[in-house]
Amino acid sequence: MAAKITGILTPHLVPLDERGEIHEAELRRYVDWLIARGVHGLYPNGSTGEFIRFTPAERRLIVRIVCEQAAGRVPVLAGAAEANVRETVAACEAYAGYGARAVAIVSPFYYRLSPESVYSYFHEIARQSPIDVTLYNIPMFASPIDVPTICRLAEHERVVGIKDSSGDLAFMMRMIAAIRPMRPEFSFLTGWEAVLVPMLLVGADGGTHATSGVVPELTRLMYDLTLGGDFEQAVRLQYRLLELFDAMLYSADFPEGFRAAVELRGFVLGRSRQPLSPTQQVHRDKLQGLLRCILADFGYVEPPAEGCPPRQPRPEAQRVATITSEVLAALRQRGVV
Amino acid sequence: MAAKITGILTPHLVPLDERGEIHEAELRRYVDWLIARGVHGLYPNGSTGEFIRFTPAERRLIVRIVCEQAAGRVPVLAGAAEANVRETVAACEAYAGYGARAVAIVSPFYYRLSPESVYSYFHEIARQSPIDVTLYNIPMFASPIDVPTICRLAEHERVVGIKDSSGDLAFMMRMIAAIRPMRPEFSFLTGWEAVLVPMLLVGADGGTHATSGVVPELTRLMYDLTLGGDFEQAVRLQYRLLELFDAMLYSADFPEGFRAAVELRGFVLGRSRQPLSPTQQVHRDKLQGLLRCILADFGYVEPPAEGCPPRQPRPEAQRVATITSEVLAALRQRGVV
Amino acid sequence: MAAKITGILTPHLVPLDERGEIHEAELRRYVDWLIARGVHGLYPNGSTGEFIRFTPAERRLIVRIVCEQAAGRVPVLAGAAEANVRETVAACEAYAGYGARAVAIVSPFYYRLSPESVYSYFHEIARQSPIDVTLYNIPMFASPIDVPTICRLAEHERVVGIKDSSGDLAFMMRMIAAIRPMRPEFSFLTGWEAVLVPMLLVGADGGTHATSGVVPELTRLMYDLTLGGDFEQAVRLQYRLLELFDAMLYSADFPEGFRAAVELRGFVLGRSRQPLSPTQQVHRDKLQGLLRCILADFGYVEPPAEGCPPRQPRPEAQRVATITSEVLAALRQRGVV
Amino acid sequence: MAAKITGILTPHLVPLDERGEIHEAELRRYVDWLIARGVHGLYPNGSTGEFIRFTPAERRLIVRIVCEQAAGRVPVLAGAAEANVRETVAACEAYAGYGARAVAIVSPFYYRLSPESVYSYFHEIARQSPIDVTLYNIPMFASPIDVPTICRLAEHERVVGIKDSSGDLAFMMRMIAAIRPMRPEFSFLTGWEAVLVPMLLVGADGGTHATSGVVPELTRLMYDLTLGGDFEQAVRLQYRLLELFDAMLYSADFPEGFRAAVELRGFVLGRSRQPLSPTQQVHRDKLQGLLRCILADFGYVEPPAEGCPPRQPRPEAQRVATITSEVLAALRQRGVV
Repeated sequence: MAAKITGILTPHLVPLDERGEIHEAELRRYVDWLIARGVHGLYPNGSTGEFIRFTPAERRLIVRIVCEQAAGRVPVLAGAAEANVRETVAACEAYAGYGARAVAIVSPFYYRLSPESVYSYFHEIARQSPIDVTLYNIPMFASPIDVPTICRLAEHERVVGIKDSSGDLAFMMRMIAAIRPMRPEFSFLTGWEAVLVPMLLVGADGGTHATSGVVPELTRLMYDLTLGGDFEQAVRLQYRLLELFDAMLYSADFPEGFRAAVELRGFVLGRSRQPLSPTQQVHRDKLQGLLRCILADFGYVEPPAEGCPPRQPRPEAQRVATITSEVLAALRQRGVV
Repeated sequence: MAAKITGILTPHLVPLDERGEIHEAELRRYVDWLIARGVHGLYPNGSTGEFIRFTPAERRLIVRIVCEQAAGRVPVLAGAAEANVRETVAACEAYAGYGARAVAIVSPFYYRLSPESVYSYFHEIARQSPIDVTLYNIPMFASPIDVPTICRLAEHERVVGIKDSSGDLAFMMRMIAAIRPMRPEFSFLTGWEAVLVPMLLVGADGGTHATSGVVPELTRLMYDLTLGGDFEQAVRLQYRLLELFDAMLYSADFPEGFRAAVELRGFVLGRSRQPLSPTQQVHRDKLQGLLRCILADFGYVEPPAEGCPPRQPRPEAQRVATITSEVLAALRQRGVV
Repeated sequence: MAAKITGILTPHLVPLDERGEIHEAELRRYVDWLIARGVHGLYPNGSTGEFIRFTPAERRLIVRIVCEQAAGRVPVLAGAAEANVRETVAACEAYAGYGARAVAIVSPFYYRLSPESVYSYFHEIARQSPIDVTLYNIPMFASPIDVPTICRLAEHERVVGIKDSSGDLAFMMRMIAAIRPMRPEFSFLTGWEAVLVPMLLVGADGGTHATSGVVPELTRLMYDLTLGGDFEQAVRLQYRLLELFDAMLYSADFPEGFRAAVELRGFVLGRSRQPLSPTQQVHRDKLQGLLRCILADFGYVEPPAEGCPPRQPRPEAQRVATITSEVLAALRQRGVV
Repeated sequence: MAAKITGILTPHLVPLDERGEIHEAELRRYVDWLIARGVHGLYPNGSTGEFIRFTPAERRLIVRIVCEQAAGRVPVLAGAAEANVRETVAACEAYAGYGARAVAIVSPFYYRLSPESVYSYFHEIARQSPIDVTLYNIPMFASPIDVPTICRLAEHERVVGIKDSSGDLAFMMRMIAAIRPMRPEFSFLTGWEAVLVPMLLVGADGGTHATSGVVPELTRLMYDLTLGGDFEQAVRLQYRLLELFDAMLYSADFPEGFRAAVELRGFVLGRSRQPLSPTQQVHRDKLQGLLRCILADFGYVEPPAEGCPPRQPRPEAQRVATITSEVLAALRQRGVV
């Protein structure tokens, strides 16, 4: 049986060249850099990787390049969702051929499907896939996968894990409580790095999150500290990561803030396929200045020549957190119905 | 300066007699029992205490009884929200006279007010109150209090803490990051016991949650283990508490599941002022059977004579968690706008 | 059998004097003014009337004054929700004694209760009330009342109608389709004046909405035009009312925008019991300037001496509408689950 | 200048053959049938048409077939959204070549983008498209398009209309109020047929909705009656359509209920590319039985041999409506913030 998927797996951005095409050389260089800085695996065609903005042929090319470049040094978890079951299974076959460790299939999106439909979809793929499958639960973008559905799908040997980007710690615990007793090798990965350390504390096996493409050293260190039992230091870093994460996530449409940060680490990512208005370009430049200061505090980049002003909690981000909390809470209660 | 408010403070139910009136003797007995089992404080007139279903005069009586019975053994955090600022300040004055350590004021409810209005409301109360004030953020029931607003209110010396029932770990971290540097004695209490241990891990000062009125020994133990650094054992108990919590919260309208559980600990709580239909009464009896089994596993009560069937993750509760996660996520993203 | 409740019933604000007490003389003058301008009924202790910011004794006083002053000229629909069933029934008895036509009971608030609990609550009240009861569904503030629950409650003769403030036209149609065949005299009143004319088109019996306390002539005219079949003119006025409504609702916390508008009609309402910050006071003054211009276009007030600038659709209000639509839609789909 | 787009345009399903491929002959037959029954236009690659479950090449084939078969008898509004701006513009060019009247571009989905990003996206497409563009706002599935953004986009001559599937009547009025004065030929189409007649009453130019693919005669008749001023009869039909619509929408994941209904009209649509579980197949058969009875009442199909039981309002659908209303309302208020 293949090894359990654990650790930090990076859902990475894809560099584009001046014509807007995949910049293969830079992608290979980025893969090497990530591996050198300690990530445990790579995750092409994730949400961070803007899989939906590429064509089916481009998605295949991305996975092929990443598998080739990783060359067995770290496992590749390849995003394989296509237009329907048949197309998705074809991608699974291709990625198996490229040497991916497993595929990650995001729950059906656009339509918001019922749990029964989500089950049917994954069941059919698991039945036909020649490669291990991990479920990808990202309810902010796709149909949610609930615990009973995960339990049913975990009956397939082919289904070997789940990436959950909900950020709900109690949900993670409910999944683990329900599935780990019968499938100890089933992998639970969190996609919400704002609470990575607490997630590991309650038993998650690792994280696959955009921030690890920006500061791979940091998230790897947080992982190692937590597994080593040094919670005090791990929590201290969690607070610092939170500041960086909030800045990248809440100051631009995802994943533009992360693109701006990866550029600071020395990569040419090109312009997003989602066009930026002049106003947005101005905001992006300003955000990049802030990110430079945050990253400079870690020592990852040089601070700007003019120095950095003292930083303060940013009200906009806080307000977002409020609305989120409020509705989370409202739904908790409504769910009681 | 008065001591920082820390530890487990119990927002307790109020026993009613056969006529539906406050059952003073049983309330006093319950207070003694809670203190004997290790809670660090009491919190009358909270959401668990159904403050909204009592008259203003009854709310005063409840606080008076609890303060008298606590008799300085543990501090009392008295819920003091009334119809408007003037009435609330009058309650603050009364509770100061009864010997409460501080009051807890829930954010304005029914109307959902803007942050500026929430600020104005608390500002006016803090200005006039003769007793320390803690904010109570419970966005599922009342206007949310966001981090910038908490920062502004923390400029009042009278405001000494916040109880947050959102359950959002990152929100707790954002509050702590923003306020602790300038107000180290400011108290952060979580009202979402499903994640009590992780909350303490990231720096919360304690918890004030309904479950501590059911199993005060357990939540006290979890608190002590976490502060003592025994995370492994603390997390193990957190999983067990989660099962109990989900059963109490998601199987009946709040706080009826908690009332059913406290009865099992040997208290006569009487019938809720919110009437139960015959169907609901049947569900309640069934729930109480399940709760008896869960509590028996802890050794807190005798198991039923007929024994307990094996327990399984309950799909309804899981589905609620799903919807919650989904909307949480949707709002995270929407907030980005 | 008492007559069906139809037409425009005004949930009015309560004038306060300089000490913050109920300003009885001004309230009586306001009642007379509303009746003279054609409203079909009065609705004290509604959401607009800030019932929650008054004490139980004050709520009784308000209803007594309004019933006395109406003196049978128009029916009074008295908001009677109190802390629990017993207190609410006591209020029903008092209001019957004052001569109210019926009471209006808002669904349980603070806690969000399940349909079964909402049913139990209203069932118990309907069983004990000596006066006709109308249900009040305002899901933005209180536990929702769904169609199956309304059907069950409509089996009580005492329950004679529903005020719905959801603004969902299809929901109104579903209620009417389910209940009118068996209870033709049951009254359906909309509380969402933004779509008053379409609501009347599909069969609603009338409206009870805050705007009728500001421009009673206008909403009465819209009602008369619609019933008279002059949809073209009615829709034209609906567009003009929408501008006024959006300005009052989305530029201040409810009901402050409506208070600012009623003042322009010549009434001294006093300062809200919800304090305004200096910033909010500035915004309120600016809003009142805009409202003066809108009301001047109708000829209800004099335009400001300096004239009015051209008005444009206001982005903030539009953005609110967007978020609303989005979540409405998201829930539609989620509900499919 | 090309004529304004008005009337009923059908976003139709795509028949599949036994191998799951596009069934060209049946699609052509369906197109003829729809035109013969009075629809004013066709809308391939809409949400009903499951555009997302086809490959880019298949989407082109569908539009080519429909344009060919329509052969100028009615205009074709072709869904042209692809993976990014470049791919979308390429589709626009192709569809212009096929003879489409205009393209319809759904707002960016998967990611929930900010208004500024939504603007940038459509702005770039409008700038490059060789064919008229209509915006497609379906906030339940895609990033919302708010009124200020629509206003900005309406400055492009190429942008000639919007399809709105929010179902919010006040939102429709706000759009019309903001844009019609400057762009009288701009087309406003509603995608929420539950309130088609009220939408037309307030000035919408037509509807493009799934139900017109099931009962084209009915929605055409409702359109004609409303424009002819016979609101009484139009509303009566609106109530009957609502029953059909609720059954199709709330008893299966969209658009499976519509597929089941179109089959009853005599078309072989094949099995959905979204697999159905055995449980779902049973529910679908039961739903189809109900739909047969509803359609038989209209005289569109034969009733089942065993006859039809009396129909009642269905609680599930009602409950969905409740949740929807509740959150709609909650957001209205939250938006005020």
